[in-house]
Amino acid sequence: MTEKSAVNIAVVGATGAVGEKIIKILEDKDFPVDTLKLLSSKRSSGKELTFKNQTIVVEEAKPESFEGIDIALFSAGGSVSKQLAPEAVKRGAVVVDNTSAFRMTEDVPLVVPEVNKEDIAKHKGIIANPNCSTIQMVVALKPLKDKFGLSRVIVSTYQAVSGAGASASTELEEQSKQFLNKQEMEANLLPVKGDKKHFPIAFNALPQIDVFQENGYTFEEMKMINETKKIMHAPELSVAATCVRLPFFTSHAESVYIEVEKNGVTVEDLWNELDAAGGIILQDDPSTQVYPTPLSAAGKEEVFVGRVRKDLDNEKGFHLWIVSDNLLKGAAWNTVQIAGELIQNKWL
Amino acid sequence: MTEKSAVNIAVVGATGAVGEKIIKILEDKDFPVDTLKLLSSKRSSGKELTFKNQTIVVEEAKPESFEGIDIALFSAGGSVSKQLAPEAVKRGAVVVDNTSAFRMTEDVPLVVPEVNKEDIAKHKGIIANPNCSTIQMVVALKPLKDKFGLSRVIVSTYQAVSGAGASASTELEEQSKQFLNKQEMEANLLPVKGDKKHFPIAFNALPQIDVFQENGYTFEEMKMINETKKIMHAPELSVAATCVRLPFFTSHAESVYIEVEKNGVTVEDLWNELDAAGGIILQDDPSTQVYPTPLSAAGKEEVFVGRVRKDLDNEKGFHLWIVSDNLLKGAAWNTVQIAGELIQNKWL
Repeated sequence: MTEKSAVNIAVVGATGAVGEKIIKILEDKDFPVDTLKLLSSKRSSGKELTFKNQTIVVEEAKPESFEGIDIALFSAGGSVSKQLAPEAVKRGAVVVDNTSAFRMTEDVPLVVPEVNKEDIAKHKGIIANPNCSTIQMVVALKPLKDKFGLSRVIVSTYQAVSGAGASASTELEEQSKQFLNKQEMEANLLPVKGDKKHFPIAFNALPQIDVFQENGYTFEEMKMINETKKIMHAPELSVAATCVRLPFFTSHAESVYIEVEKNGVTVEDLWNELDAAGGIILQDDPSTQVYPTPLSAAGKEEVFVGRVRKDLDNEKGFHLWIVSDNLLKGAAWNTVQIAGELIQNKWL
Repeated sequence: MTEKSAVNIAVVGATGAVGEKIIKILEDKDFPVDTLKLLSSKRSSGKELTFKNQTIVVEEAKPESFEGIDIALFSAGGSVSKQLAPEAVKRGAVVVDNTSAFRMTEDVPLVVPEVNKEDIAKHKGIIANPNCSTIQMVVALKPLKDKFGLSRVIVSTYQAVSGAGASASTELEEQSKQFLNKQEMEANLLPVKGDKKHFPIAFNALPQIDVFQENGYTFEEMKMINETKKIMHAPELSVAATCVRLPFFTSHAESVYIEVEKNGVTVEDLWNELDAAGGIILQDDPSTQVYPTPLSAAGKEEVFVGRVRKDLDNEKGFHLWIVSDNLLKGAAWNTVQIAGELIQNKWL
């Protein structure tokens, strides 16, 4: 595309939980938008959304929708991305895709700007936005890896229902009311929309996010494992994940064990690196009960880190508690950040 | 005491969440009770409780309450145990104490019958019941340690509010209603009753259970670390814990990473040992979405294990998901089991 200060943006999946957040961020950040096209499935088309006091009618996403678009932000599910992202690229748009469709494709950069911004430059039309639970973890791990080296990561997640879409939040709300009214809880969606069995999430914990793979891990767990290595350019890094869905609406939390490579590293050393890094807010003071929680992180862009402790048996081991809004840094905000870098660095 | 088939039992903390479960188990299991004395604080004394169609008036616990008692089951907080357990022992009772008061005292056995039943024999009047989150973990680890050796444990917990007492369950219920009615949530108790700050637990996660120690770990985390080593007679075992309170009422869940000592161990090998072990129910079939959850384990005595996976980077590493009712196996049932062993093995 030719250089210009404002660009034509398309948001695919504009009526979804992440799409709505993207539109709000584009407005709040005064993103240099020339025209904004809002796209969705046929079912949601015709809806009216507001952007900077303008009413925009949502249109059905079709190949020709992308004519004249500079950046297309996709967040409408993997099958939509697989079908339409190449069509958008064919028409000259650069796609930032917030689904798992292209994340592990070799020549598609998988980007968290705080970690591997420079990979954006290598794009061939599509840049993938990582999985929400991966993004917040690598933001916190990156400065530690740079300073102390990193050999091992073991994470157990505490994930909000909104990661499974707006309807999962409705399900949690409905089930909570049913339980409190001593009615039977109706489970129709979680743990995974398309899977065979559904279990109540209200006042419960479900150790399944996304479908099971042949190796006994869920797809969510494999995303965390594979995407972390790709984003950090660390194929040799040992990463293990257990992903659990919990009854809260917003923000994922993660209990993360790491092993650094350097000797003699202290908690203070970790604090210093985390505190100085971009996109991270350190909230860690046991003496005054300061630590992040899903509620305290909700609505905020940053990744919050607390409960930093040295392992009591392993000199190179540390524990961290990492929390971030799964719809913002975990999705919409990271997507808009990538779009911003595309413009700012003239990488379109 | 002289041998006899039925014994005189005192329950201290009879009106509490665990006390009530103990009384119910004594009745349901047809425990050989001669007389049952129900004791509490002065405030709760005078209440009437039912045991085997008998009405029993709860009395204030005093040193002389233990005259003629064979087994005293304490579950009224650490300060009550510290004050009255020695008085009970002085009067000839054997105390099974469900608080942290004596757990790490050197000559007090800390017992989970499936793991170290034989330690009961060494008691000098007091036997300690471990912390709820520790109990369910060591039940699952014991058969694996016996068969494959065990060098390392890293656990992240998902703990129910009832572990903080019946009032914490009330708080979760009230806050949930407040949130769903779009009112501000009132936090007066959690994360820790006596601590300075309180945060909402409804639709949230709190990475603090019990008070913080000087080393940055919470007391709950240190309990898991120290008690696991003591119960398993494994001072050299590397144990790390991160403990998190979550918005459900019953059952603790645990994401546990272990490293075994033997080479070539498979998931099937772990399944076989877990399946054959007493007190464990294996619920692990990804292909049909079979795994335990807090709701599915609530009200049951056993420890449930699922999501058994081999680590993808470490040949000796495995991941497990361990769930059990924190008020039953985690407290009341383990206490009654110890009392049963005292009688059956003539260890009184």
